[in-house]
Amino acid sequence: MKKIYLDYAATTPVDPRVLVAMKPYFSKEFGNASSLYSMGQQARLAMENSRKKIAKIINAEPDEIVFTSGGTESDNLALVGVALANKEKGNHIITNKIEHKAIMETCEFLEKQGFEITYLNVDKYGVVDLNQLKKSIRKETILVSIMHANNEIGTLEPIEEIGKICREKGVYFHTDAVQSFCKIPIDVKNMKIDMLSASSHKIYGPKGVGLLYVRKGIKIEPLLHGGGHESGRRSGTENVAGIVGFAKACEIASKEMEKEVRRLGKMRDRLVDGILKIPSSYLNGHPEKRLPGNTNFRFDFIEGEALILRLDMLGIEASTGSACSSRDLKASHVLTSIGLNPKQAHGSLRITMGRYTREKDINYVLKNVPKVVNELRKISPFKKGWE
Amino acid sequence: MKKIYLDYAATTPVDPRVLVAMKPYFSKEFGNASSLYSMGQQARLAMENSRKKIAKIINAEPDEIVFTSGGTESDNLALVGVALANKEKGNHIITNKIEHKAIMETCEFLEKQGFEITYLNVDKYGVVDLNQLKKSIRKETILVSIMHANNEIGTLEPIEEIGKICREKGVYFHTDAVQSFCKIPIDVKNMKIDMLSASSHKIYGPKGVGLLYVRKGIKIEPLLHGGGHESGRRSGTENVAGIVGFAKACEIASKEMEKEVRRLGKMRDRLVDGILKIPSSYLNGHPEKRLPGNTNFRFDFIEGEALILRLDMLGIEASTGSACSSRDLKASHVLTSIGLNPKQAHGSLRITMGRYTREKDINYVLKNVPKVVNELRKISPFKKGWE
Repeated sequence: MKKIYLDYAATTPVDPRVLVAMKPYFSKEFGNASSLYSMGQQARLAMENSRKKIAKIINAEPDEIVFTSGGTESDNLALVGVALANKEKGNHIITNKIEHKAIMETCEFLEKQGFEITYLNVDKYGVVDLNQLKKSIRKETILVSIMHANNEIGTLEPIEEIGKICREKGVYFHTDAVQSFCKIPIDVKNMKIDMLSASSHKIYGPKGVGLLYVRKGIKIEPLLHGGGHESGRRSGTENVAGIVGFAKACEIASKEMEKEVRRLGKMRDRLVDGILKIPSSYLNGHPEKRLPGNTNFRFDFIEGEALILRLDMLGIEASTGSACSSRDLKASHVLTSIGLNPKQAHGSLRITMGRYTREKDINYVLKNVPKVVNELRKISPFKKGWE
Repeated sequence: MKKIYLDYAATTPVDPRVLVAMKPYFSKEFGNASSLYSMGQQARLAMENSRKKIAKIINAEPDEIVFTSGGTESDNLALVGVALANKEKGNHIITNKIEHKAIMETCEFLEKQGFEITYLNVDKYGVVDLNQLKKSIRKETILVSIMHANNEIGTLEPIEEIGKICREKGVYFHTDAVQSFCKIPIDVKNMKIDMLSASSHKIYGPKGVGLLYVRKGIKIEPLLHGGGHESGRRSGTENVAGIVGFAKACEIASKEMEKEVRRLGKMRDRLVDGILKIPSSYLNGHPEKRLPGNTNFRFDFIEGEALILRLDMLGIEASTGSACSSRDLKASHVLTSIGLNPKQAHGSLRITMGRYTREKDINYVLKNVPKVVNELRKISPFKKGWE
């Protein structure tokens, strides 16, 4: 059966060029990067070259890149690391209501540890309230963490302005850039970002690798203690093949970025125009300020879950929200925070496009989604009680 | 040039059979294991089958296996996780003086957070003092963490007896089994182990994957908060290819274990006999109760660092101690804890054998090590001042 993968925000296939780059480091150049003999040193060299390549892409210094096991670890390291290392300065952290669970749950954990968290509001598009941010920063504030692009609705946050506000007030600024990294331009110096989380498997690299950019001089307590790897900021034997693959994925994505932003943006706009022709259908997230490959729709009277299962039968692989929450029956905190009621939130469909998405895939979606929505509405028990 | 890798305790090459098993999960079956559509469910199935396979090997239940990014994360999760989740019971943890840095440094971190740590003594072979253990357990004790096999000197700890003592006293028992897992038999039920750390890259699996066995009913706070993966015990998109590779590596290693224990044990004994013919040379660690593939020697009057660099020039890749500490100039805490002075500790050489080590490699080592030791001694500045 035809398979059309349209959940690139959840994960991406490893690009064959990335796998080629990784391959020597599994069984041939397998040395431990901390070993002193030649093979260990070669592994270290491969890793340090990877660090340099990645640093350059976001205008950072190589030693400001800390390799981790993925975006979740990076987010945890940023928040817990700053919180524990800057306790004497204060116990207040600011974030917002539509962050990824890796931020939300870490904040809840920190609340249990005695930290105070302010969750900023977002508008109906998911854009964070800058005035509220300015008013919320106080002398005990040690960190502001606002994502670059939302993983469900694709909305881009004004991180340049947030960076400016934080720098002026002398507060650290972390951004979860897992969805935007190597997809849209990032310059940590210009954007005044102090810390940034990114993940390899969202950009055609392997799963199990990520990074935290930590600006020189930022104080963090490590989350993983041990052999003192990554200049004492993250212990654990370095995943050399994974890191090499991650760097190769970054290299490819940043080279192809400009072209992809245009190509995906065009397909996205065509998809949005086509889907919104369905009666009682809406776009979630910002109409313009959103990721090139992201669309998120809602349809009155039906459940997103039923929709994606029907689409799966037609070979279309999409999602209702973030993959991390897909096994959870609660309505998405992102969709309820932009003002949807739980029923509306449950009627949502996220279609995210990527490197291997073609115009003909969009044609197939545009042919089938209206049909499936229509069929589901015919049998929908919600039709009458829908507010 | 001839290359003889003899640092299998630091890391191992990925077995070609493991790479074959992993390969489909990079670019073909790349789904996010939390996604609801078919490809996501296939990824989940592959992961759950891996969990079952591994659980069976150590006589655990599948849902007692938590996949992590490696041994260091597993050790951190065990210690910090138990400490934070059992604060109300007490703040006392017992470990010993020759644990891996992933335990030692995590204990130091916990000390800063208000926990009290008892570091048990070991005898001259590195065996932990069981009487001291019994006397040290008190009502505030929440955890005992003692490694199964030491990473530097290969000494096996009496974990069955430790398990019995802990179970009787109602204290959780964690063991860092990174060096022993799938190399010598482990049965978590018989050995009364509550938590166990293991790593993939020590047993011919990929780097960046590990596990923590957590017995049902044990209370731990997660270290990585987020989407609630691994039944809420470890968040982060699952590294499916890595997990599948890890399981394949476990399968191979456990099947070949009996044969390998004998084969490696024989080579180890021949190597020990041969090296100890060098005047003023000694074996570090226990003469019998040690890992089949581990040897650790010391030579009066010379520095281990010079020795391994000379051996590297002859194609022999070995180490002075653990890879994690090899960039550190301090004497090994393991070697000083078994009674060596810093000079003796610095004169040590760890040769660890594994799956691809052959008798002829041992011949080569036995031909060259005595020569190199002799040469270095001739030019040694320590010859006179050696205590």
